[in-house]
Amino acid sequence: MGDARRYHPLSSPFRMKRGGELHGARVAYETWGTLAPARDNAILILTGLSPSAHAAANAEDPTPGWWEAMIGPGRAFDTDRFFVVCVNSLGSDKGSTCAASIDPATGTPYRLTFPELSLEDVANAAYEAVTDGLGIMRLACLVGCSMGGMSALAYMLLHPGSVRTHISVDTAPQAQPFAIAIRSLQREAIRLDPHWHGGQYDGDEWPEHGMSIARKLGVITYRSAMEWNGRFARIRLDSDERDGSSPFGFEFQVESYLEGHARRFNRQFDPNSYLYLSRASDWFDVAEYGDGDVMRGLARIHVDEALVIGVSTDILFPLEQQETIAKGLGAAGARVDFVALDSPQGHDAFLVDIENYSRAIGGFLGKIR
Amino acid sequence: MGDARRYHPLSSPFRMKRGGELHGARVAYETWGTLAPARDNAILILTGLSPSAHAAANAEDPTPGWWEAMIGPGRAFDTDRFFVVCVNSLGSDKGSTCAASIDPATGTPYRLTFPELSLEDVANAAYEAVTDGLGIMRLACLVGCSMGGMSALAYMLLHPGSVRTHISVDTAPQAQPFAIAIRSLQREAIRLDPHWHGGQYDGDEWPEHGMSIARKLGVITYRSAMEWNGRFARIRLDSDERDGSSPFGFEFQVESYLEGHARRFNRQFDPNSYLYLSRASDWFDVAEYGDGDVMRGLARIHVDEALVIGVSTDILFPLEQQETIAKGLGAAGARVDFVALDSPQGHDAFLVDIENYSRAIGGFLGKIR
Repeated sequence: MGDARRYHPLSSPFRMKRGGELHGARVAYETWGTLAPARDNAILILTGLSPSAHAAANAEDPTPGWWEAMIGPGRAFDTDRFFVVCVNSLGSDKGSTCAASIDPATGTPYRLTFPELSLEDVANAAYEAVTDGLGIMRLACLVGCSMGGMSALAYMLLHPGSVRTHISVDTAPQAQPFAIAIRSLQREAIRLDPHWHGGQYDGDEWPEHGMSIARKLGVITYRSAMEWNGRFARIRLDSDERDGSSPFGFEFQVESYLEGHARRFNRQFDPNSYLYLSRASDWFDVAEYGDGDVMRGLARIHVDEALVIGVSTDILFPLEQQETIAKGLGAAGARVDFVALDSPQGHDAFLVDIENYSRAIGGFLGKIR
Repeated sequence: MGDARRYHPLSSPFRMKRGGELHGARVAYETWGTLAPARDNAILILTGLSPSAHAAANAEDPTPGWWEAMIGPGRAFDTDRFFVVCVNSLGSDKGSTCAASIDPATGTPYRLTFPELSLEDVANAAYEAVTDGLGIMRLACLVGCSMGGMSALAYMLLHPGSVRTHISVDTAPQAQPFAIAIRSLQREAIRLDPHWHGGQYDGDEWPEHGMSIARKLGVITYRSAMEWNGRFARIRLDSDERDGSSPFGFEFQVESYLEGHARRFNRQFDPNSYLYLSRASDWFDVAEYGDGDVMRGLARIHVDEALVIGVSTDILFPLEQQETIAKGLGAAGARVDFVALDSPQGHDAFLVDIENYSRAIGGFLGKIR
């Protein structure tokens, strides 16, 4: 298996929204399909907190990507027609410069000396990769999922005229207190782990317990109670799958399901980078661009057409927030399709309910010229 | 301030449902109002996981109780008419025998040698206090809130004929996987805290971090996103209220709100006892009494009248579960009032939305003879 990642060196210094700057920073990205000579068929995908730029298999890396079923010839993101780019968020450890990267000024990892990260920085870094790196001055479509949906709003606010159409997936114009509370608790679990060592963990001493709790809490809020009633109900583990004789060991299937998720995540994501991206999600607020008003902020985004998708079972980014985005973009002049799904999988539906998301996204992209 | 608690010594040995027995165990309780000579005006309240038996002020302890506004002369639980009893759950550390109690066999605290606790044990202990202790063979009304609602179902299943009417508040006939997942994560946070020491913590080394995470996760799931949107929105703390210069310190009001809850809870509840009661809540399942079927289990409960209250914003005990209880009790022959509230406060509404709960409960009790 090769590595399909390419890297775009960011402008240096790369100035961060909240102060500070990066020198010699870069973002990783991958592409699928062919850029048309007029450079007018490009789709950029901005991701949620944890995925890499490897959204789908490609020649260099044939392993399935995190949105595999959506990207390819004849799929919703039809690579026979579109040139699809996925950029790994600045601050993520999947190839882009992040808290685990070496600070060229010191020769040691940034860790907590990494400057405060905002989703505007994530958006600006992706913008540089698309424009300076790939020479694409106007995207046929900008797509953002979850956290990436907020980064996408930042992208359009900061770079007017750079996006023709927009697809907003399971996201929000600002973090609400329930989502802030969940993320705050995830960060606290990591920071309270004695092995976090104020961000100075190393291979031997890694905040695995904190990351495990953070991940499990993530999975709980990414899915929905309804799905779990059907999927796990009160099914017990076989006795040989249980962990020991304590009454507090895992006994129900839902408990081992969460443990499996935590094990697959642990050591796969840098804890400090997780903290930075998590806090960046709290901070994002379209209202900052509208004198404190979300709708006035959204009114500053001008695209021709938009598709806004949300799920009624999403507790982290509730459907009302997608409705607000749809209304705001519509009021600003876009033709907006608002698709409210009843998928049982909650916030993660876009990763699971491929049938409905394919239909909505494929249908929308099929209409745009 | 005096101590209003009285204690009922349980039968010895007190046999536990899942095996094991307690010797010389007791439960704490408090009372309000006067028991009628016919002993037919008693209301028993079974509590959620953390409250004590001090549901309201009384002569011995004038401090406000956890359901203060509901209990007293002219209030929903009208003590001019009813004799109200609140029993502290067996396994809770508010006066009843629990994991922090001294095991008479060893002279040291049980800690994890406490036998596995079930809500059936909680119910049986309360039943002994009411019958053997107070001589009340038939309750005018059995009330259960949250976990106490499940204990109340156990009480009626195990002691047919002992209850005339029933009030079921924000509870469930069985734990669903979302609730199990949340509680599992709360227990994990405590058990992973190095200061838990396998249950052998002492005053100097206390699993405060784990208890803090557990409590915050509790508060997040006890309330509702809707309430918090109105209450906290994205309001920031004043700079002098923030904790230091880290980007991960508390910045939003919702974060300090959770921290305040955690601080008030920490060292106020024994961590091992919390683990036992939490796991008991996972285990409870009315279906065990109905050959694996919840409705058949509920069919074995016979009361004259029942009031079942739930809240549409409750994510821990969703409204559908109260609806199931109402249907099941109705199918078994009770006259049932089902009250579905839209209180914004989520699961905790019964502690906050006193107006609606007073109206429903006061109205129901006013009708019963």
